[in-house]
Amino acid sequence: MNKRDSISMSVIRRLPRYYRFLGDLKKNGITRISSRELSARMGLTASQIRQDLNCFGDFGQQGYGYMVEQLHEEIGKILGVDLKRKTIMIGAGNLGRAVAAHMSFNTKGFELIGIFDKNPLVIGKAVNGIIIHDSCELEEFCNKEKPIAAILCIPREATKDIAESLISYGIKAFWNFSHYDLAISHPEVTVENVHLSDSLMTLSYRIGR
Amino acid sequence: MNKRDSISMSVIRRLPRYYRFLGDLKKNGITRISSRELSARMGLTASQIRQDLNCFGDFGQQGYGYMVEQLHEEIGKILGVDLKRKTIMIGAGNLGRAVAAHMSFNTKGFELIGIFDKNPLVIGKAVNGIIIHDSCELEEFCNKEKPIAAILCIPREATKDIAESLISYGIKAFWNFSHYDLAISHPEVTVENVHLSDSLMTLSYRIGR
Repeated sequence: MNKRDSISMSVIRRLPRYYRFLGDLKKNGITRISSRELSARMGLTASQIRQDLNCFGDFGQQGYGYMVEQLHEEIGKILGVDLKRKTIMIGAGNLGRAVAAHMSFNTKGFELIGIFDKNPLVIGKAVNGIIIHDSCELEEFCNKEKPIAAILCIPREATKDIAESLISYGIKAFWNFSHYDLAISHPEVTVENVHLSDSLMTLSYRIGR
Repeated sequence: MNKRDSISMSVIRRLPRYYRFLGDLKKNGITRISSRELSARMGLTASQIRQDLNCFGDFGQQGYGYMVEQLHEEIGKILGVDLKRKTIMIGAGNLGRAVAAHMSFNTKGFELIGIFDKNPLVIGKAVNGIIIHDSCELEEFCNKEKPIAAILCIPREATKDIAESLISYGIKAFWNFSHYDLAISHPEVTVENVHLSDSLMTLSYRIGR
């Protein structure tokens, strides 16, 4: 078995964070860093960092530390940030528009090529240069452009039906802001959920403890 | 030591999810559920569910299952969702406005009482009935209203200085959408980070694996 196939989700979830921190170090002209220094900056233990990075190859040298640029580039490759996977967004309400305007998809492995909504007030407008199309054009658009990922910024009630359609149009991966648990009904697709309300309730729990 | 003090963050992070699922069951008129049924719906193992819920008290009965309403209410209390902690938002750009319009704070333990921005184009407008104030009024507002939590929807460069000010004005908890790692420079406050780009990069990693 490839070493990378057995990596736990908790290690994988830390990778983007390493990528961000190393990107900052690089930007600040730092070329080399010890796991001890990195641990102080990231709030992880040095041994945790060594263990995590060891899952992906030999990046560090005992007593010498990590080469910032090389490690940043390597983690970027592992994450697939240079890929430009064709992506569509469904839902151009407040949240959809904020995500479309706020995120730089092309440095995260994706290319946003179309936004869809059924609200006539937003159809034809653009967010970040991306046109908002009428949802009824979705099938035709997918047949022609063949996107593989979809961002769902729609109410929960609407998600099941739209997701079924999108899967039949060839979508393989979802970035899901709706509160519908897609991964359970469709184990064949890759789903990354964003539950902002779970994050807020976690803060609620932690306050005062 | 109180049993609850030693609960791991990974259990805590699952609590809001239980709360959501149980809320749905309740809404659908389901009064009782076995850990096996709950596990099928949530995509967790039954033994995981029993272990998690056991951290907080004896909610289930062997061979009988969980009382949905009671368990929902109990988890809500643990999460503190009924508390109305006075909360302010800093930054009324796309993201801030989307979060203010989209989230129901009052069912998650918080009450949004003011939004602040330095952009004259948005000052004086309202989102969801909450007025956007000029950032220069922040200190006065905090002295008067005594908010304890702040939502940061500002660019990373601005975060350090504003966070320092907010802490000096009495803010104890941050819901942080900026990419500045607040928790490391201020271990005395509670910080819950939302890193949308980390989530997107995790999706990038998982596609095709």
